[in-house]
Amino acid sequence: MDLIVQKYGGTSVRDAERVMNVASRVVEAYDAGNNVVVVVSAQGDTTDDLIEKAKEINPNASKREMDVLLSTGEQISISLLAMAIEKIGRPVISLTGWQAGFKTEATYGNARIDRISVDRLEKELDKRRIVIVAGFQGLNKYDDITTLGRGGSDTSAVALAAALHADVCEIYTDVDGVYTADPRFVKTARKLDDVSYDEMLELASLGANVLHNRSVEMAKKYNVKLAVKSSLEKVEGTFVKEVSQVEKMLVRGVTRDNDVARISLCDVDDNPGKAFQVFSMLAKHKISVDLIIQSIGKESKKDISFTVTEEALPEALELLEKDKDTLGAREIKWTKDVSKVSIVGAGMVNNAGVAAKMFEALYDAHINISMIATSEIKISVLVDRKDAEKAVVAIHDKFLA
Amino acid sequence: MDLIVQKYGGTSVRDAERVMNVASRVVEAYDAGNNVVVVVSAQGDTTDDLIEKAKEINPNASKREMDVLLSTGEQISISLLAMAIEKIGRPVISLTGWQAGFKTEATYGNARIDRISVDRLEKELDKRRIVIVAGFQGLNKYDDITTLGRGGSDTSAVALAAALHADVCEIYTDVDGVYTADPRFVKTARKLDDVSYDEMLELASLGANVLHNRSVEMAKKYNVKLAVKSSLEKVEGTFVKEVSQVEKMLVRGVTRDNDVARISLCDVDDNPGKAFQVFSMLAKHKISVDLIIQSIGKESKKDISFTVTEEALPEALELLEKDKDTLGAREIKWTKDVSKVSIVGAGMVNNAGVAAKMFEALYDAHINISMIATSEIKISVLVDRKDAEKAVVAIHDKFLA
Repeated sequence: MDLIVQKYGGTSVRDAERVMNVASRVVEAYDAGNNVVVVVSAQGDTTDDLIEKAKEINPNASKREMDVLLSTGEQISISLLAMAIEKIGRPVISLTGWQAGFKTEATYGNARIDRISVDRLEKELDKRRIVIVAGFQGLNKYDDITTLGRGGSDTSAVALAAALHADVCEIYTDVDGVYTADPRFVKTARKLDDVSYDEMLELASLGANVLHNRSVEMAKKYNVKLAVKSSLEKVEGTFVKEVSQVEKMLVRGVTRDNDVARISLCDVDDNPGKAFQVFSMLAKHKISVDLIIQSIGKESKKDISFTVTEEALPEALELLEKDKDTLGAREIKWTKDVSKVSIVGAGMVNNAGVAAKMFEALYDAHINISMIATSEIKISVLVDRKDAEKAVVAIHDKFLA
Repeated sequence: MDLIVQKYGGTSVRDAERVMNVASRVVEAYDAGNNVVVVVSAQGDTTDDLIEKAKEINPNASKREMDVLLSTGEQISISLLAMAIEKIGRPVISLTGWQAGFKTEATYGNARIDRISVDRLEKELDKRRIVIVAGFQGLNKYDDITTLGRGGSDTSAVALAAALHADVCEIYTDVDGVYTADPRFVKTARKLDDVSYDEMLELASLGANVLHNRSVEMAKKYNVKLAVKSSLEKVEGTFVKEVSQVEKMLVRGVTRDNDVARISLCDVDDNPGKAFQVFSMLAKHKISVDLIIQSIGKESKKDISFTVTEEALPEALELLEKDKDTLGAREIKWTKDVSKVSIVGAGMVNNAGVAAKMFEALYDAHINISMIATSEIKISVLVDRKDAEKAVVAIHDKFLA
């Protein structure tokens, strides 16, 4: 008997019909003799609707209360899915994050999972019940509800799969796998049969929108075998696992990330500790900084530019504005009209020509590059948002078409 | 420093504007130097909307899963109200039923509160925080969410007031107090300054729609002083407390209850144990039976008629249908086209003329009575639903106008 963890996103359970569809998928796996744990997200736009409700009352509501509010979205989903499975006539029980034993760090809004106390879960599985678990949420040491941040349901699913030593963690989504580029605007995009954790990590964090990066990190750490599948069509998806690649493809995918904003600190004092000061201050507030450029300004001054997520932008600006004088910055500029376009592939590390070929593709398409960053398995550039899709198509055609 | 428990119903928090209004009410009490605990219900139609969502998927969903679903309504309310109070700038924290320490019996859907572990509540009050508590919900011994049934938020508030030894429990609603009759259709209805627990108990259970009867029972048991007030207007409400009535009013109010359905078991065997058998079976399924009449049928057969709430009707009929043969009943009839009209008053017990006067009022208005029940402080009659308002007006005019 295998133990399967399945995760269904918000679009997969957005209405009664979709919930029934998911229920029959779940029952199919159960009837095949497996133990099944299902993690679900909030239905469709529920989370956004709840955020809207909160904003109407208090745009600066505390993260603690936002977590109390937002966690209801998943709680609604688990009960509805359990009811759908009851209708089909299989034993089932829903568990909230705290009932399922998710213990998180104290932080609200973006908590990390500390551990999962699986006692209750295992007791329910021993009774051969299908267990439906609310993703995205847990309980901290104050007995307060916390949420794991956007995409946290993926992390919930992988953490559960690790804690329960599941045979596979199936992530159901509205696409049927991981593609070489977004098939919505790249006609020649192809589906990948499997990718390594590291590749998926870059694809996820760079905006492939299939898996949350924290979930892939966790899957890698605990060696959880992932399967990315369509919740609508019955086709083979993409496996994410530690594979020795037979066919070493140089470039595996091209991604675009619009959830990015650029901040520039102009004329900062050119002391060695300055950049450290900025980024450690932001890190203390859990704001992740991505691409970074320092450029020399005039007279022992320099400009520091970096990118953050759009969500983090207001808080980052507020923090920087407060520290402006200490930083010695003359001006703080920012824009959201940028996108990050990246190529990913474990094979590219030993090939110097890849970057040059990428820049050539962008040059030929008359697209300006404002920032560049490279790692062992990716090369990212920041371009104007209006050029982003064109950039992806140009690069994909060059490497993968 | 007084400790005040306030309870706001669903209409009082139905949108952002109302939530802000409640927040300023709460802050007013807090700023006056009181410790304030606030119990809130789900916003407006939220509970009905959630029930609708469930029905669409599975009309026969288990009560356990319904409780998981429905409890989200109050959880949304507490977070929104806390956010509104944060906006005004007072220290506040929201607590779900389980966080607030509500322990209930195991039953789902209509659980009774066993006890409240007030440790966390008291810790928060010691920090001079306003505490917002989700009404209607608790946790049973299986660590499962339970709900207290319709109107359960009143019970939550009174139970909290008792557990915390609060000075007063203020129930805010969309009416500004308890009236001698429903002012919507009885023009001469007057607001009462105070009523006794027993009177309120009858007024509540008879459909005055102001307070849930379980909450009044609990208030009486623990001697919690209640105040029924308007959440919109700032006027004196009605106090519910143990009072030695200076002015002993014979009849205190006239009520109508439409949430009633009549079931008749026709030609039941005329054995002494028959009625007991019926009612103990229904009681075992937590179905409350109200007015009861046994009438002699033909040849050692009898008819048993009784009333239940509309909500309980389908389950009651199903149970009776199953037991039909054992009961020896020839036929089971039922109707929802009835209403219960009652007069209530602690002073009427020693006055034989009250019932006669009530029947006379109905006779004069040409209204048929199908069942009658009397207790120490009330007289109830069952009439056709179409006649109910006319009956209330006629009786009110006779006793109270």
